[in-house]
Amino acid sequence: MQKNVVVAVDAMGGDNAPDAILAGVVDALAAYPNLEVKLCGLADVVEPFAAEHERCEAVACTQVIEMDEHPAQAFKAKPDSSIVVGCRLVKDGEADAFYSAGSTGACFTAGTMVIRRLKGVSRPALCTNVPCPSKTVVMCDVGANADCKPEYLVQFAQMASMYAELLMNVANPQVRLLNIGEEETKGSTFAQEAHALLKAEVPNFAGNCEGRDILAGTCDVVVTDGFTGNVALKTIEGVGSMLFGEIKRLFMASTKTKMAAAVLKPGFKELKDSVDPDTFGAAPILGLRGPVFIGHGSSSPLAVKNSLGLAVRSVEADLTGKISSALAEQAATSKGEA
Amino acid sequence: MQKNVVVAVDAMGGDNAPDAILAGVVDALAAYPNLEVKLCGLADVVEPFAAEHERCEAVACTQVIEMDEHPAQAFKAKPDSSIVVGCRLVKDGEADAFYSAGSTGACFTAGTMVIRRLKGVSRPALCTNVPCPSKTVVMCDVGANADCKPEYLVQFAQMASMYAELLMNVANPQVRLLNIGEEETKGSTFAQEAHALLKAEVPNFAGNCEGRDILAGTCDVVVTDGFTGNVALKTIEGVGSMLFGEIKRLFMASTKTKMAAAVLKPGFKELKDSVDPDTFGAAPILGLRGPVFIGHGSSSPLAVKNSLGLAVRSVEADLTGKISSALAEQAATSKGEA
Repeated sequence: MQKNVVVAVDAMGGDNAPDAILAGVVDALAAYPNLEVKLCGLADVVEPFAAEHERCEAVACTQVIEMDEHPAQAFKAKPDSSIVVGCRLVKDGEADAFYSAGSTGACFTAGTMVIRRLKGVSRPALCTNVPCPSKTVVMCDVGANADCKPEYLVQFAQMASMYAELLMNVANPQVRLLNIGEEETKGSTFAQEAHALLKAEVPNFAGNCEGRDILAGTCDVVVTDGFTGNVALKTIEGVGSMLFGEIKRLFMASTKTKMAAAVLKPGFKELKDSVDPDTFGAAPILGLRGPVFIGHGSSSPLAVKNSLGLAVRSVEADLTGKISSALAEQAATSKGEA
Repeated sequence: MQKNVVVAVDAMGGDNAPDAILAGVVDALAAYPNLEVKLCGLADVVEPFAAEHERCEAVACTQVIEMDEHPAQAFKAKPDSSIVVGCRLVKDGEADAFYSAGSTGACFTAGTMVIRRLKGVSRPALCTNVPCPSKTVVMCDVGANADCKPEYLVQFAQMASMYAELLMNVANPQVRLLNIGEEETKGSTFAQEAHALLKAEVPNFAGNCEGRDILAGTCDVVVTDGFTGNVALKTIEGVGSMLFGEIKRLFMASTKTKMAAAVLKPGFKELKDSVDPDTFGAAPILGLRGPVFIGHGSSSPLAVKNSLGLAVRSVEADLTGKISSALAEQAATSKGEA
């Protein structure tokens, strides 16, 4: 029999919380028979729900961190919030992973302060699947570290490669540095230094890529500082949403176009789904002592369900343990060379 | 009678040079009756062409800077290249503007070294129209300055606002800073410092925008460092090209979809054109003593024609003079305040 995986779930996080979260938990419990949920949130939300669902336990909290609160201040001021309590369950070994669609900053702060970094990790990083129809592309960091040192990107590369391999089934993932030219002499001082370090220390580093390459099918893992990564990711979302909006307008222009659109609709739905962040659901924070998955603020029940599936798989695959071993091995090699 | 505008044109620059450039010059000469072209390039390219076209003079050069050459080295090594010679024509008052679809870096270096900066300009910057169907959006810098200081962005904002107003007919353009959150405390140290300076010194500064806002219809002028701007611009191009590729595949899937696609084709063509860099053609380097326009490496004849139209209008509108006055005024105000 499969071992159960316990995921602490923030019932209060996200624009559609708690309804979308609870609906997603229902679907996830049905889809993943070895999932157990510890549902963190206000008592009147989590207790009645847990009473009605098997493999779901209520963890009542008295506080909620809002999306627009300053992460570090909110973390200090709200020790009994669903985010902090969820992270504490992971730290205390009462949950195997934590999921929230709430404030990325607050989850990152709570994850780093409560669950803490893996030994040797300079900066945990936010990693995500980039919506690409033709293949899996993973990008890291996408917003956790707005200010980076070049050496952080070596660890981002190692951690994101492990994630791509274990969770996204990408065999021998190739790493590329997001830059503004292909040659190694291109880009900012930061990018040039990061290129040199990646070349020296990451065997699966395959050189630079540019913004237009992210979705072109040539990248497995794209590493970048959190500022650039966040801009690129949100730009991708923005272009997609703008173009699908324009296409909808085209489809609705006349009776004739509406009829033509009906024929093409299944294909367009499939394309739209393939670039929809809901398909993958959540982005992991890599480099902590326990897995934390952060959902999009606008997460739908489908996104919540898929996120919890990802959390279960990351525990089953021992993502944390394997990242830890990989970093230790790398550190030993670097020391041996020095 | 309208005064003639003389544009020095690099016949050798771009992936499709010289054919696409020459075809574009033919169209531009027909479209803009007050355009005179000084066509810079190898003698066997420019001389036969000039002999057959009115208002076109050949300026024979013996050297060509290739796309992948190191800009500063190429500039030094090839003083008789079409890019350097074209810039020299502007510097010597023999041309009013310069256009090239060749190496952006080489044009930037030659522009800065030969034509030189306007008084008071810290860093000239590359400014471009972002392909957006619903409105005009101008972004600056998109790649000239990979390393920026926060204070550069104040001038980028002033120069790009003037460009948007004079050339793109945007009345009272609002400036936004590309960042990873809306609040002024968000983002990298660089972005936070730039935000504070823009707020203090640029009256039409309207706050931060995120990657997803660039095309959402809320921005007129987006300012950013050249690294982030280049990544964002190329990401936009990449997403568009990926999605239009997928849509073409959908259209061609079966006889039924082909028939439906035929009905929708005119609308899709219009949409595709509206996000096509060829529509605007070229990006100006702002902050030089004479206008320099840089085309996409893959510029088509249409892009060349539109670029030369933009060059003519920028001279007629006295873009350079008005940027110079605006910066002098700003400098006087800052001094007065200090």
